[in-house]
Amino acid sequence: MDFVKNSIPICGEVGYTYTMGFERQKRFLPHRSTHKESFMKINAHYQDLEQSYLFANINRKVASYAAAHPEKSIIRMGIGDVTRPLAPIVIEALHKGVNDMAAKETFHGYGPEQGYDFLRERVQSYYARIGVELAIDEIFISDGAKSDVGNILDLFDVDNTVLVPDPVYPVYVDTNIMAGRAIRYMQACESNGFLPDPPEEAADIIYLCSPNNPTGAVYDREQLKRWVEYAKKNDAVILFDSAYEAFVATKDLPRSIYEIEGAKECAIEFCSLSKTAGFTGTRCGYTIVPKALEPLNHMWLRRQTTKFNGVSYIIQCGAAEVFTEEGIRQTRENLAYYMRNAKVIADTLDALGIWYTGGKYSPYIWMRCPNGMDSWSFFDLLLEEAGIVGTPGAGFGKQGEGYFRLTAFSTYENTVEAMRRLKDLLQK
Amino acid sequence: MDFVKNSIPICGEVGYTYTMGFERQKRFLPHRSTHKESFMKINAHYQDLEQSYLFANINRKVASYAAAHPEKSIIRMGIGDVTRPLAPIVIEALHKGVNDMAAKETFHGYGPEQGYDFLRERVQSYYARIGVELAIDEIFISDGAKSDVGNILDLFDVDNTVLVPDPVYPVYVDTNIMAGRAIRYMQACESNGFLPDPPEEAADIIYLCSPNNPTGAVYDREQLKRWVEYAKKNDAVILFDSAYEAFVATKDLPRSIYEIEGAKECAIEFCSLSKTAGFTGTRCGYTIVPKALEPLNHMWLRRQTTKFNGVSYIIQCGAAEVFTEEGIRQTRENLAYYMRNAKVIADTLDALGIWYTGGKYSPYIWMRCPNGMDSWSFFDLLLEEAGIVGTPGAGFGKQGEGYFRLTAFSTYENTVEAMRRLKDLLQK
Repeated sequence: MDFVKNSIPICGEVGYTYTMGFERQKRFLPHRSTHKESFMKINAHYQDLEQSYLFANINRKVASYAAAHPEKSIIRMGIGDVTRPLAPIVIEALHKGVNDMAAKETFHGYGPEQGYDFLRERVQSYYARIGVELAIDEIFISDGAKSDVGNILDLFDVDNTVLVPDPVYPVYVDTNIMAGRAIRYMQACESNGFLPDPPEEAADIIYLCSPNNPTGAVYDREQLKRWVEYAKKNDAVILFDSAYEAFVATKDLPRSIYEIEGAKECAIEFCSLSKTAGFTGTRCGYTIVPKALEPLNHMWLRRQTTKFNGVSYIIQCGAAEVFTEEGIRQTRENLAYYMRNAKVIADTLDALGIWYTGGKYSPYIWMRCPNGMDSWSFFDLLLEEAGIVGTPGAGFGKQGEGYFRLTAFSTYENTVEAMRRLKDLLQK
Repeated sequence: MDFVKNSIPICGEVGYTYTMGFERQKRFLPHRSTHKESFMKINAHYQDLEQSYLFANINRKVASYAAAHPEKSIIRMGIGDVTRPLAPIVIEALHKGVNDMAAKETFHGYGPEQGYDFLRERVQSYYARIGVELAIDEIFISDGAKSDVGNILDLFDVDNTVLVPDPVYPVYVDTNIMAGRAIRYMQACESNGFLPDPPEEAADIIYLCSPNNPTGAVYDREQLKRWVEYAKKNDAVILFDSAYEAFVATKDLPRSIYEIEGAKECAIEFCSLSKTAGFTGTRCGYTIVPKALEPLNHMWLRRQTTKFNGVSYIIQCGAAEVFTEEGIRQTRENLAYYMRNAKVIADTLDALGIWYTGGKYSPYIWMRCPNGMDSWSFFDLLLEEAGIVGTPGAGFGKQGEGYFRLTAFSTYENTVEAMRRLKDLLQK
């Protein structure tokens, strides 16, 4: 069966291939011939999704190599998951939250869907540190940025044009395909430092992620200002993913789009404690929907109160400590650990004369594959000759071909060892 | 501004009224006149939503009464939220989960979006206790039934006819209105014990909730069998909300729709630990999408892996203990506490000769308002003359007019006192 793709590529499409058992899907396909007057119809847009074989392929190759070479040590620098334990102050608050649930007097039942004020106020003060003033009811606590980045699309008509960068975090693409929305890709490449400027064409919904996943590149204030101007000119909305903001250890670069004047009138910001505080398995994030963006603020409140029941009280207790002075100090220690790893990687690539972005204010390093290799060939070479697992850039889109992502989330010792092996390999 | 309602009432519509700041919404309304070639359009279906003023009205009336009568004690039997602390075995497991996150060796990062196998296996064995065999990959762990009941609609085409009972849990209605789907109401009333049978007309998506919120009525196996037959005949899907299954303390009534032969071919079941184990503020639930319902099982997996990052590892640790023998014993103690309250209420209504459903295998009692009163008048009378807060049936739909919901989630002492006051009031 053939299905027409609903994406309109400008500079190339993301390169997944996908099948989802189409034969079985026929059962509920719309427009089938039937003598019945009614039958349940599935959302046919799911058939337009392409399966990302990326991490499945990586896992298969790694497993196969490990089976053939049981003596070889494999260093994993592929997946963007943290490895350091939660900060002590967070652990303590989580225990207190659990204890509260053990006694009638301190038990918490249903909480506000948009989060407890004790946490929203902490997020508010966290933004105030970088000069961004938010009202409490512009802050929505969530179980993570991925949920909200996907669910926010409930608020928009199908008939909107979506603009995403290529390479891209696949969630931006897949959630829009599921809803049947047209997608345009903007080309990120070496010449723009993988930080594309607004195009000539108009768009309605714009995805920006800075510091970027997968490239680690960070927009400066001038660049973001051009995006805000573009969005306002086109009556568009920017969905700004700032999940990696905590890695921006300089005042020279923005950590929130709201540092740009006028952004509250055109941007929704998604953030997460996943990387900030190692919450990938603990689950908490927050989304900012400014009141200047009405009716979206009210619609999001309505969406969340109807389709969500809030984040666990226990988890919110832990999350609130992340934003205290002591919490910031403790969580930044883990970030410093990862950034030391990133520097080891960056220094190695500098010494090898290999072009890359990221690694300075991001746990991701996006490197050009050496000797003009394509990204899967370089993956195979790295795995087989050096026992290092990274992520081929082609997995993030057509423009990712020829590039490769390494992450700084391994241990320091393994990172040093991996870079020693990389040097040996490429200087052979 | 007028907006056409997209519901097609059979037996009356739910009676909310709603405005969402339409004047401000104009900014992003589709089809406005504009000289621009592109502008972001909101999901206009949100304008078809009617605000439920139900609990806002209740809160306003209670606050006003409390201010005027500071000396009066008010007993709240309105909202369906639990009050008893979590079971000790759950508390212990939550602490262990927190401790795991404190050490590098036991730290958990991203988990499987559909839940850890250690919890899915426990849910599997919980179903096995009532003779229902499920495969692990038919079980999806969620942050609660409300999220999944709403999000499952992503899988269905807009062009489906939805059948909901009236009175109804408002989430079934609102989530479909948000998506622009046609809704038909089926009449629940005294003559069918508030348990409607399938209609003559065909429908595509059917909502059933048993034990029911708000009526507490429980379908028997013969009745559910008729629904399964209806769904199969019409190629429809049943969305079965079994959030209150743990209150069914008899083998004579079904606790899962999968106790009915053929149900796996037509039903998705949603359940929650909110009432089973007092998790309203802790947040965990599960959804069963049978593989016999392909492609829905694969589509839901794809939806969840794309738009969700799983439930907190810590919470899943606690949830897993709910389904052990000891966990079941401890959590059933809390349910027994609530059911003792329900019996106090039911016995009082029996003594007063007032018709009601629920209260036997449900924490909800759905009573006819005495002396032919409408439900808001009875609300006012109960509050002002007895200091008791309940929920007017009209808030759950047109068919709820003339009825009133009391919940068994208060303390035993308060429940006894409330029923003493009710007797005094009605026997005056």
